[in-house]
Amino acid sequence: MKSFIEVASGRKPAQLVFKNIDIVDVFTQEIYRGDVAVQDGYIVGVGSYCGKTEIDGTGKYIAPSFIDAHMHIESSLVSPAVYSDAVLPLGVTTIIADPHEIANVAGKDGIKYMLESTEKIELDAYIMLPSCVPATNFESSGAILNSKDLEEFYLHPRVLGLAEVMNYPAVLNCEGDMLDKINFAKKNGKHIDGHGAGLGIPEINAYIAAGVSTDHECQNPQELKERLRRGMYVLMREGTAAKNISELAKAVTPSNSRRVCVCTDDKHIDQLLEEGSIDSIVRLLIESGVPVTTAYQMASLNSAECYGLSEIGAIAPGYRADFIIISDLEKVSIEKVFKGGELVADNGVCVKNSKDICSIPEKLVSSMNFGEVLEDDIQIYADDKSRANIIEIKPNRLETKHIVGKVEVRDGKFQISVEMDQLKMLVIERHKNTGSIGKGIVKGFGLKKGAIATSVAHDSHNIIALGTNDDDIIAAIEELRRIGGGIAVSVGGKIEASLELEIGGLISKKSSDKVVEELEKLHKEVACIMGCSDFNPFLTLSFMSLPVIPEIKLTDKGVFDVRNFCFIDVMS
Amino acid sequence: MKSFIEVASGRKPAQLVFKNIDIVDVFTQEIYRGDVAVQDGYIVGVGSYCGKTEIDGTGKYIAPSFIDAHMHIESSLVSPAVYSDAVLPLGVTTIIADPHEIANVAGKDGIKYMLESTEKIELDAYIMLPSCVPATNFESSGAILNSKDLEEFYLHPRVLGLAEVMNYPAVLNCEGDMLDKINFAKKNGKHIDGHGAGLGIPEINAYIAAGVSTDHECQNPQELKERLRRGMYVLMREGTAAKNISELAKAVTPSNSRRVCVCTDDKHIDQLLEEGSIDSIVRLLIESGVPVTTAYQMASLNSAECYGLSEIGAIAPGYRADFIIISDLEKVSIEKVFKGGELVADNGVCVKNSKDICSIPEKLVSSMNFGEVLEDDIQIYADDKSRANIIEIKPNRLETKHIVGKVEVRDGKFQISVEMDQLKMLVIERHKNTGSIGKGIVKGFGLKKGAIATSVAHDSHNIIALGTNDDDIIAAIEELRRIGGGIAVSVGGKIEASLELEIGGLISKKSSDKVVEELEKLHKEVACIMGCSDFNPFLTLSFMSLPVIPEIKLTDKGVFDVRNFCFIDVMS
Repeated sequence: MKSFIEVASGRKPAQLVFKNIDIVDVFTQEIYRGDVAVQDGYIVGVGSYCGKTEIDGTGKYIAPSFIDAHMHIESSLVSPAVYSDAVLPLGVTTIIADPHEIANVAGKDGIKYMLESTEKIELDAYIMLPSCVPATNFESSGAILNSKDLEEFYLHPRVLGLAEVMNYPAVLNCEGDMLDKINFAKKNGKHIDGHGAGLGIPEINAYIAAGVSTDHECQNPQELKERLRRGMYVLMREGTAAKNISELAKAVTPSNSRRVCVCTDDKHIDQLLEEGSIDSIVRLLIESGVPVTTAYQMASLNSAECYGLSEIGAIAPGYRADFIIISDLEKVSIEKVFKGGELVADNGVCVKNSKDICSIPEKLVSSMNFGEVLEDDIQIYADDKSRANIIEIKPNRLETKHIVGKVEVRDGKFQISVEMDQLKMLVIERHKNTGSIGKGIVKGFGLKKGAIATSVAHDSHNIIALGTNDDDIIAAIEELRRIGGGIAVSVGGKIEASLELEIGGLISKKSSDKVVEELEKLHKEVACIMGCSDFNPFLTLSFMSLPVIPEIKLTDKGVFDVRNFCFIDVMS
Repeated sequence: MKSFIEVASGRKPAQLVFKNIDIVDVFTQEIYRGDVAVQDGYIVGVGSYCGKTEIDGTGKYIAPSFIDAHMHIESSLVSPAVYSDAVLPLGVTTIIADPHEIANVAGKDGIKYMLESTEKIELDAYIMLPSCVPATNFESSGAILNSKDLEEFYLHPRVLGLAEVMNYPAVLNCEGDMLDKINFAKKNGKHIDGHGAGLGIPEINAYIAAGVSTDHECQNPQELKERLRRGMYVLMREGTAAKNISELAKAVTPSNSRRVCVCTDDKHIDQLLEEGSIDSIVRLLIESGVPVTTAYQMASLNSAECYGLSEIGAIAPGYRADFIIISDLEKVSIEKVFKGGELVADNGVCVKNSKDICSIPEKLVSSMNFGEVLEDDIQIYADDKSRANIIEIKPNRLETKHIVGKVEVRDGKFQISVEMDQLKMLVIERHKNTGSIGKGIVKGFGLKKGAIATSVAHDSHNIIALGTNDDDIIAAIEELRRIGGGIAVSVGGKIEASLELEIGGLISKKSSDKVVEELEKLHKEVACIMGCSDFNPFLTLSFMSLPVIPEIKLTDKGVFDVRNFCFIDVMS
């Protein structure tokens, strides 16, 4: 503290000073010019300073580096170390990560792996404890985490609270274990994240009254306002599949922004590298009309306050020297990224790469536990019916539409129709070899031939496959077994492309370049078998099995009506 | 939690519902209409509700009740229970109190008395631990509190942190015990209040870098901005002596208000009852041009966030049902005050009075420990000088002006001059009978005859006396001994009025009506001996001995130059 005081008061020169730089002031939402003095990893003064090292800031801006308020590392498809290298140059120095994907595969071992593998990376990773493993009782996951299972993790210094409480019916119905989880977090002064997709006002009130304080599922300005008015923090999201920023930005003003944060939630590595992370969200906010300083505030201070991270999120004395140097504020052109006063990324390149040094637990090494899938196993029997409950996708949204329509039936079995875009979708339990297979009909993907399959299938991460014929569907599934989990495209019984995700069937061990290259091949091959599309079919497929997002989904146990929270028959 | 969820979701009727009421939304700074449902002391829903009891809110407003972010109960001159009864009907349900007045008299016993005496009152009183007892080493207090002395109190659930660190030179000079106090608070996750009177930018930076996070001494918009930009919470103040609101309000906007709070700091009971507390500050903010919802936000949510009081400060689910029902928002016409869902004040009257049930420690019962004051003891010897360092008061400000001017000298002694308004002021040590007496010359009070004396003399609370002749000065001082501390006015050797403050020489045991009646008599008598004035002479006198507020003050050890932090001779 002594050296802080001596430097801040101007009695001693600072280790590092940015001279004459334009400071993005996220407190008053203004920009002003000054010197920023850094000592021992902290900002100690903003004013007029001399430093042992002085960097001329003329024509540049300094802003707090970014916080991704809610995300799943698993969704990037790369390991924490690779992820860190990818987002640090984009100005993200802190993430609030929920490891619920890997926890659905490997339970406590999955959480431990994520805590250990994020320990030594350059990025600051805070962890929220998965609240819904499995997301619901309507699917088979690799593990079940009860309230008692989570308790030990709260002692970890990087654990901030309970992650997105997706099972809102369990909260509304006052189910014992869910209330125990919430109560334990509250009692320990920890934070509780929400997931209020489609919730109306009484449900949102109940959710908040129970202790839930954030929502990242807002779809429109009305929902945003309803949540903000009730004191919720709204985490506005722009990921690979779910894109809400431009719609929600309409309702954000400098007067109501204090509890609005931003997050990526789920974003593939290829899109992170191509488009950006929180930096691209800030850009989009500004393009959508949010005032510049408000956009930067939403990406820093607001999230820091939301999660009680009192040392980050602003350019001010006593804050950690986590900041970005920018040449164009509106374009978010980041030249340098500092963390704890050290340069960690320079012109888009990490100064020092993070390393994967943590060992991978057995449960994550071999996670493809399912028996051979035969043609007979995957038939949809129609009896005498010819109408079906069809899942219609909404491009770039996690929600689906429930439609009921006529389908082609032959020999008492549903027939895939490329013409009518009525394809077959399967969810195959892959954790405990139970043989459980859910079957459904889906519209909107527009595959013309072949099949795709992935072991990334939120949140239980069973195998999900979609195709135009049974042979290709089976081929794609078998490819996943061969590579230990991942993504595959098959056409005419042949595998055209695949990506190994050998850590739990979710995460690759490879570099981001390699993963992006393989993803590109997958996308190229899938483009050959699809009509034109402006959405990511693999990611969209990955969310088709998440039974907490309306209106209709498919789990390994069958077609699920999310609005009524019950299974329904495929045929209607 | 179960009943919260059931009521919030609309499955069960609430205990209490305000129907169709206009809600002051301090999150988005808007007003909107709805029903507010209360259950078990908490707000559980805002929307459309049925209740066992329903109150029609048509034409009314509901706003979070007020938080006084920094205050000293002692300055009201009444006990905590009497104080509670006075401010609850004004909409104040929470105070952040610093008991440093009584701690300067009785040390740890003083803090314990304040903790105990606030335990059972209706008002929620949080306590900050006095950081500067005595305020400086340049005065004699009744106790010295070192870092170690404070530690035990941090365990108390109502102790939020370290109170206003007034001795900023000790911080800037890195003095051991002061840094220990700050470090201990920081290490325990506690809050540290500042007192940045007149501090420039480097000093403010150093102060904040050391861990100080608030300032209630801002004088002008520039200082306000400088502090907000650096992440400080600014507590805008309007008390009896120090009035900063109208000046500072010019700089507050809905975009920069999030870290702006309000406080009374020091306010006498008569002014509280006549003018108001935080309610009158909100009124003044609105009159000064601050948007209505911003003003209410500053009086509630902002202070709650500043002090980590996550359950109060807003009308939203999960917040405690501490709110006010208002008929006119701009005039702050409070009809009803609810705390924890219970009606605690109705049309300006407490539903249930608080009681003083705590015993008063011996140190506070007999606190007038000083020997007889003789005429010889109080002479100011001029030697051959005829110019003096004169303390000029600034009406309604705690600061003084240091002027050097010619004074009347006869027989080698300074002569009081009513014509030139050069009066004699004394500070007499009264805790340990050391015989220490400080003597000074003051301008600006404008007494024409007689003398006034008080045992309320910030912060060491020695006896401070001011007069037009030595006889009356001594008479007023002797009256204080007789009544066990308080305030006295003497004219022609006769006591015209006095007020007993028998708890530590600071606080009366009497009801607020009785204290106000006696204060009125004091004011009436002092008006007879003063020219016209628009300031409170007793309160102004009480701050003449506080050596942390610029420019020049008087302690029992002599005339103190605050800017240079050293004693100077009276004669120059």
